[in-house]
Amino acid sequence: MIIDCHGHYTTAPGELHVFREAQLAALNSPAAGAVQVPRIGDDQIRDSLEKAQIKLQRERGSDLTVFSPRASAMGHHLGNEASSLQWARVCNDLIYRVCQLYPDNFVGVCQLPQSPGAAPGDSAAELERCVRELDFVGCNLNPDPSGGHWNSPPLTDRHWYPLYQKMVELDVPAMVHVSASCNPNFHATGAHYLNADTTAFMQFLTSDLFRDFPTLRFIIPHGGGAVPYHWGRYRGLAQDMKRPPLEELLHNVYFDTCVYHLPGIELLFKVVPHENILFGSEMVGAVRGIDPRTGQYYDDTKRYVDALQLSEADQQRVYSANARRVFPRMDALLKKMGR
Amino acid sequence: MIIDCHGHYTTAPGELHVFREAQLAALNSPAAGAVQVPRIGDDQIRDSLEKAQIKLQRERGSDLTVFSPRASAMGHHLGNEASSLQWARVCNDLIYRVCQLYPDNFVGVCQLPQSPGAAPGDSAAELERCVRELDFVGCNLNPDPSGGHWNSPPLTDRHWYPLYQKMVELDVPAMVHVSASCNPNFHATGAHYLNADTTAFMQFLTSDLFRDFPTLRFIIPHGGGAVPYHWGRYRGLAQDMKRPPLEELLHNVYFDTCVYHLPGIELLFKVVPHENILFGSEMVGAVRGIDPRTGQYYDDTKRYVDALQLSEADQQRVYSANARRVFPRMDALLKKMGR
Repeated sequence: MIIDCHGHYTTAPGELHVFREAQLAALNSPAAGAVQVPRIGDDQIRDSLEKAQIKLQRERGSDLTVFSPRASAMGHHLGNEASSLQWARVCNDLIYRVCQLYPDNFVGVCQLPQSPGAAPGDSAAELERCVRELDFVGCNLNPDPSGGHWNSPPLTDRHWYPLYQKMVELDVPAMVHVSASCNPNFHATGAHYLNADTTAFMQFLTSDLFRDFPTLRFIIPHGGGAVPYHWGRYRGLAQDMKRPPLEELLHNVYFDTCVYHLPGIELLFKVVPHENILFGSEMVGAVRGIDPRTGQYYDDTKRYVDALQLSEADQQRVYSANARRVFPRMDALLKKMGR
Repeated sequence: MIIDCHGHYTTAPGELHVFREAQLAALNSPAAGAVQVPRIGDDQIRDSLEKAQIKLQRERGSDLTVFSPRASAMGHHLGNEASSLQWARVCNDLIYRVCQLYPDNFVGVCQLPQSPGAAPGDSAAELERCVRELDFVGCNLNPDPSGGHWNSPPLTDRHWYPLYQKMVELDVPAMVHVSASCNPNFHATGAHYLNADTTAFMQFLTSDLFRDFPTLRFIIPHGGGAVPYHWGRYRGLAQDMKRPPLEELLHNVYFDTCVYHLPGIELLFKVVPHENILFGSEMVGAVRGIDPRTGQYYDDTKRYVDALQLSEADQQRVYSANARRVFPRMDALLKKMGR
């Protein structure tokens, strides 16, 4: 069984986008209450997936995608806390319908109703709703709800603890995932995403967060940003700062395989213990083209992982066992389905 | 001949630090004009280098370091434009003395008197002074003088053009190098530096800057941040955006080898053409310890490069020819010295 831990609903029907535009346009106006939540039919959902994610699952040979709302559209920097909550609910409800329609193909991860200046604990209720009522298994946590201004406290600050308490209580992990950037310095998928990954890892390295929350778990996507490439730098920094060795962080921190070429995947597997790598592709996502050098999609990361010719045990870890361990609620769901 | 393209004067005598503290303490006060520039004797300079950089050059087998003021101490976000200018001059003058004392070991690169909100063109005079009067061969350009708030325009914005005009006129490159971070999200050497490298590359990728300045040259340090690890992502993003292939950027953009473990260096050399890699170590810099796995300094990057067993032609490129091409004024200086 092959689990892709990182997929967003980037192909959602246009009605979702129309709603979001209307919602933001009506913000703070008397019309705000009148904006209709989008009506999307089951057939539209089926159509949006069968020609994209499901087709690609079949073609590339993955079985199940851990599926969440489109990351770049979370737009926590837009609107306010109330509109972020409405938007998160609409997006999460749509993911729920996807998972209901295709329980064999998708399991849900939620968008949080974060907003600049809002207390992270305010997101706990939506997380709990998604987990307890919609059977979701995790969340995406945006370390920078400002969209590129980075004016929230670091992820290791007590500011975030109320949300972490809920994550621990529910036993769900978070993928650290920023959204779009409104800072012209940062291209979203070419800089902001990777910077956030790198930033989060260094925050974890320099703090005792996991002493306070020994079972809290984070996935750092996009292969960990710059981290595995600079593994020696991080080992050396930890040593110079008299911090514990990186291995200790790895009880709580995991990386996906969203690295879109073989040499990058080779490096990832050379430096990061295989227990800490979760297969992921982020399809259909940041990079949609075909690499003319290989004739294959850049984001068909399974080809790179397969090319490593891992032992069967390691393949099993990376393709499913690690994900089932990091997402215990997914494991329980799958077991209930006999998978 | 082995040229290390990336060294900072991190071991400068304490008087320099005392001056900076006093300068900042007196800022905007009547005492500002009375702060004495530091008095540092030649013996102090010799002592600070002979037990550090020069000793390490000898031990590790490099001949010449492209040497600039301590990057983390540039502190462009502190003080104002006038204090930044004074600080840059003091630091650059000290580098000049280093190069006068050890012309065989060091060649100078300057700190610019950047300041949040200041026009980059205001840095052109200090650049010109350093190049024309002090024989410096390049500069360090901070893409984020705010120290982690990223509120300047991207490096590709016309905002920066007056400085680029001076760089082109003088035929000197810039290393893209941020300074300390005053944003608690970003650890300086573990996040801010690498993020800036990644960010700058993506800015270059998405713009036509080098159409406007075909001879402008940048070195992206720390092995290019996250870029080589995500080379496939960048190739794919360029393709999706109908931008030219990355190879076109490589007429103007270079990477150093400040990556502190062998797998990282292996990746760098696998994906980046060797014409675009300049040997660098940033010693004595971000990581000062010895790797217990190898028994060698993390930042002894020459060991990793040597381990690649490059062809003699490639070694010559990476260890000296590329640097001499990117820093033509250094090449001229060396030729004058018969090297």
